[in-house]
Amino acid sequence: MNRTLNIQQYIKASAASVEQELKRSIPEEWEIPDTLREAVMYSLLAGGKRLRPVLMMAAVEALGGEAETALPVACAVEMIHTYSLIHDDLPAMDNDDYRRGKLTNHKVYGEAMAILAGDALLTHAFYTAAQVSRRAEVPAERALAIIEMLSELAGPKGMVGGQVADMLGEQGLTKQEELDGIHRHKTGDLIVFSLKAGGILGGANAEQLTALERFGYKIGLAFQIQDDILDITGDEKKLGKSVNSDEKQQKVTYPYLIGLEASRRRVEKLTEEGKQAIASAGFVHPERLNDLADYLMQRDY
Amino acid sequence: MNRTLNIQQYIKASAASVEQELKRSIPEEWEIPDTLREAVMYSLLAGGKRLRPVLMMAAVEALGGEAETALPVACAVEMIHTYSLIHDDLPAMDNDDYRRGKLTNHKVYGEAMAILAGDALLTHAFYTAAQVSRRAEVPAERALAIIEMLSELAGPKGMVGGQVADMLGEQGLTKQEELDGIHRHKTGDLIVFSLKAGGILGGANAEQLTALERFGYKIGLAFQIQDDILDITGDEKKLGKSVNSDEKQQKVTYPYLIGLEASRRRVEKLTEEGKQAIASAGFVHPERLNDLADYLMQRDY
Repeated sequence: MNRTLNIQQYIKASAASVEQELKRSIPEEWEIPDTLREAVMYSLLAGGKRLRPVLMMAAVEALGGEAETALPVACAVEMIHTYSLIHDDLPAMDNDDYRRGKLTNHKVYGEAMAILAGDALLTHAFYTAAQVSRRAEVPAERALAIIEMLSELAGPKGMVGGQVADMLGEQGLTKQEELDGIHRHKTGDLIVFSLKAGGILGGANAEQLTALERFGYKIGLAFQIQDDILDITGDEKKLGKSVNSDEKQQKVTYPYLIGLEASRRRVEKLTEEGKQAIASAGFVHPERLNDLADYLMQRDY
Repeated sequence: MNRTLNIQQYIKASAASVEQELKRSIPEEWEIPDTLREAVMYSLLAGGKRLRPVLMMAAVEALGGEAETALPVACAVEMIHTYSLIHDDLPAMDNDDYRRGKLTNHKVYGEAMAILAGDALLTHAFYTAAQVSRRAEVPAERALAIIEMLSELAGPKGMVGGQVADMLGEQGLTKQEELDGIHRHKTGDLIVFSLKAGGILGGANAEQLTALERFGYKIGLAFQIQDDILDITGDEKKLGKSVNSDEKQQKVTYPYLIGLEASRRRVEKLTEEGKQAIASAGFVHPERLNDLADYLMQRDY
């Protein structure tokens, strides 16, 4: 990726290459019921930030590798993220009608199809990740390690576990540590996966993988708190969703627990700690990761 | 596996070793919300026939390999099968209260938890399958090929696609070919995966893999038709479910389309064709596969 791009241009360019790859991520020649293909693509191409893929690609580059190598795995993590949103929006879960300014999957295709579209995306994520081994420079051992890590961090111990903890803890939380624990799995684990997968593909050593993991949990939590802050202070147009939804749903958030100002300070501190975690691990190009951390903190959408 | 066992003893012994492995399939030291672990295990250990694992193990043995090698992948396919039942039973799908004589997952744990337990099982299946590479005799390339095949045959083109086609086609089907197409994906693909994964683990050549695939689709369809027949002629106690449920739900079945007698003849013919498909592919021990095909045709549960 061109190093003269500023961080916003960099994000845009990386997201665009992921977008292009996502569009062809289900082989055209595969015989699939039309409605299923449509329902899957409706949510997969609904204009997400592509944060996880961009972080993955930046991690590969931090090690001096080619970001494009990561595209299959970047698409896989975006599929996992997308399926989790589809299932999360279902009437039995958060019962949301809109996401990113568009009707949610079940509002367009019905509940049964939304459940199955989510299942299809989750399953297809592993097919897509496995394609990374078609690249000459990625040995089967590495592809397998990535798949194992994805299933661990997205599964019962990881993201799904976080979803369950969130659901069970709703309204009953009183401590910051409990909230941190939920965010760690619900949001953090998939961000950490993205960074570590990028690390593995870039040939990171053990110290660098640990540094990427720390960086990931720090900026993952900062990201989540920033989301909570924007739900109070943000612009509906930029966000593509209604503000004050957390308060309406009586969700326990960081601003609710410690106030808006302290939440802002925590975002800054976490971002700083994240950058420190990767500062001395010998990355050849850590700039993009640092810039991304700063950018996420300053975002208003 | 001891060759002196008759087929019923063989199935019982194989299923028992899968059962034991399934019980410890989520590491005890993993921190997971208790209710999620409970909900997952409730359905995973609800006393299924373990047909897919048994077929996989028999395929390994047909090639002269050790059935135990297949245990991680056998557990994985059972997890995929189980998640599909949990989601299939949901109110938005078939809305079933009982399965195998027990309350369905959402009746015990609620809809949201049932959706998430299914997602957890589906994700964890890939973690479990990846563990097969810990065995010295299974190189990473082979493990990766199995994972790719599992995601292909369980995903949008495979089992999930079959579920969607079934849902969209409900009541509107008139042709046997349409019904065959649905069964091919909804039931056949996972059975074929099981046999071919066993083949790969046993070191099958290309001809043997093709033979296992043919065998799988033939006996898979026979299995499904037999299910439809038993729904009319079966004993509720042995089946663990009410009979005539297909008629009540106005489902288009084989007996509905071509009658009971013609359905029975079709089961016999498919079983015979299945056995022929593997007859001359050079398996050292095809007996168990043949016995299983016959057994499935004669079963009354």
